[in-house]
Amino acid sequence: MSSPSNRPAIISEVGLRDGLQSLSMTLPTERKLAWIQAAYDAGLREIEVGSFVPPRLMPQLADTAELVAFARTLEALFVTVLVPNLKGAELAIASGADLMLLPLSASHAHSLANVRKTPDAMIEEVARIREARDAAASDILIEVGIGTAFGCTLQGDVPRDEVLRLMEAALAAGAERVSLADTVGYADPHGVRELFVAARELAGDALWRAHFHDTRGLALANTTAALDAGITRFDASLAGIGGCPHAPGASGNTTTEDLVFMLEAMGLATGVDIDRLLDLRADLVGWLDGETTHGTLWRAGLPRTFCSASSSLA
Amino acid sequence: MSSPSNRPAIISEVGLRDGLQSLSMTLPTERKLAWIQAAYDAGLREIEVGSFVPPRLMPQLADTAELVAFARTLEALFVTVLVPNLKGAELAIASGADLMLLPLSASHAHSLANVRKTPDAMIEEVARIREARDAAASDILIEVGIGTAFGCTLQGDVPRDEVLRLMEAALAAGAERVSLADTVGYADPHGVRELFVAARELAGDALWRAHFHDTRGLALANTTAALDAGITRFDASLAGIGGCPHAPGASGNTTTEDLVFMLEAMGLATGVDIDRLLDLRADLVGWLDGETTHGTLWRAGLPRTFCSASSSLA
Repeated sequence: MSSPSNRPAIISEVGLRDGLQSLSMTLPTERKLAWIQAAYDAGLREIEVGSFVPPRLMPQLADTAELVAFARTLEALFVTVLVPNLKGAELAIASGADLMLLPLSASHAHSLANVRKTPDAMIEEVARIREARDAAASDILIEVGIGTAFGCTLQGDVPRDEVLRLMEAALAAGAERVSLADTVGYADPHGVRELFVAARELAGDALWRAHFHDTRGLALANTTAALDAGITRFDASLAGIGGCPHAPGASGNTTTEDLVFMLEAMGLATGVDIDRLLDLRADLVGWLDGETTHGTLWRAGLPRTFCSASSSLA
Repeated sequence: MSSPSNRPAIISEVGLRDGLQSLSMTLPTERKLAWIQAAYDAGLREIEVGSFVPPRLMPQLADTAELVAFARTLEALFVTVLVPNLKGAELAIASGADLMLLPLSASHAHSLANVRKTPDAMIEEVARIREARDAAASDILIEVGIGTAFGCTLQGDVPRDEVLRLMEAALAAGAERVSLADTVGYADPHGVRELFVAARELAGDALWRAHFHDTRGLALANTTAALDAGITRFDASLAGIGGCPHAPGASGNTTTEDLVFMLEAMGLATGVDIDRLLDLRADLVGWLDGETTHGTLWRAGLPRTFCSASSSLA
């Protein structure tokens, strides 16, 4: 029914980080390597493979350096990692990843719970990380992801002005990319459109990603609102796994396979082969052995009329 | 986060018809009466209480006349019923309902499976129904709901020109309202926006409703696209029950409670008290005794920051 405009869109698979960190089980490294390879084979070209956090805090992600090393061997794969602080950034710089994502909670309460720093202390850390990156003559990009940007389970309201103030401060401190995350699933399409439009005015092309959770079923509706504000890069996790350990009630990132379906149906070319992605999803569900998963496309299947924007580009 | 514009939006609860018709169980009439009363008490002001189809074909809905009689006693409740043909229309006229909805499948194959008539034969039935309504000097409104408007599981593609041709024919035959339904969950936000904009140009204010299914997770995203096209009246069913017996793979109407949450968060006043609606949902899930239900809000609860557009209007 759609007349595709065939713009490109980029999906960053974050299940290996945001998904696995919220599970009690640890997925074996060999499974993660298979996940990265199969996601790549399905056409994904950006993967957040892990997080450089102390292994004692998050043993599920202790193999991040090994995953980066493997992911770097895949041609044209953009490899990202999360880093909570300077120490993590040094490991990320050494790893050879393409981008490091620094989470910065606009909620004071969530920031303290998540990284034991105030938002402004995190801004100072951004400046130190930028300095270390430049001193190392590394070309790893620095992105600051503003989390709890639409409200917080701990603090409640997060003023929009505070979100924008922190975004501006992050850019001033040396971040080259900024993004907005609905960490706890509080966002609605109206608020998403308004905040992304305002952030675009502030950050220009440095604003390049949206990160939604499907806690209250609005991840895809919020995605269309961000699209309206010009965003075409989205985080998502296969089978919708994920959440935030310090945000009670948060559950489920945007589901990768459902997001690919929606974007492709709308005429946005993600480059992803949905059938291969659904095969990988089935494997992953098996590997996760009873952990909660999400998503609808796997059950219903593609519409008979489905025509992917990516295939019509090819 | 949103700055509500506080426009009104109307949600029509269709669970008693589109929901229950797809279940194998028959909900006792006393439960349906309790459902109607509780939905009304929660603030819903439009309910599709049933369908005037032969009881042997759909015994689950055999008590429709009794439900209409009760619903009419509730002040300012807009009572709608589905009718498949002239015989059903005569019963609807006699019942005193406010509106009768005639389903018209734009898909030839689905139309034959659903009502054993071609789409154009249904247009002729619309004309006969209009004649009968006028002859009875009844003020029941006639709405034609164009189903499979975004594609069909049986036929595949449904050309947009055919959808619009049938809509124009329905209006010419005497329909006073027309609407578009994604009967099988094939629609995407891009296609929804385009078709509703085109339908608005054709039908003006006679176009007044969208009916989505969440088969592939896009019901709420499609709702925002219809909102963009000026639609503010939406069908939904509590706990997302429903489907279409003749559309394999179809499952789940838009979930009423999730839709209310999204619209209210966006600043659209539905008049519905979500807490009361969630109480009713819990009752309904008990009554349905193991039938498949859907929805996310009931599990996650409202955001701490939630401010309903309806309460700020009150």
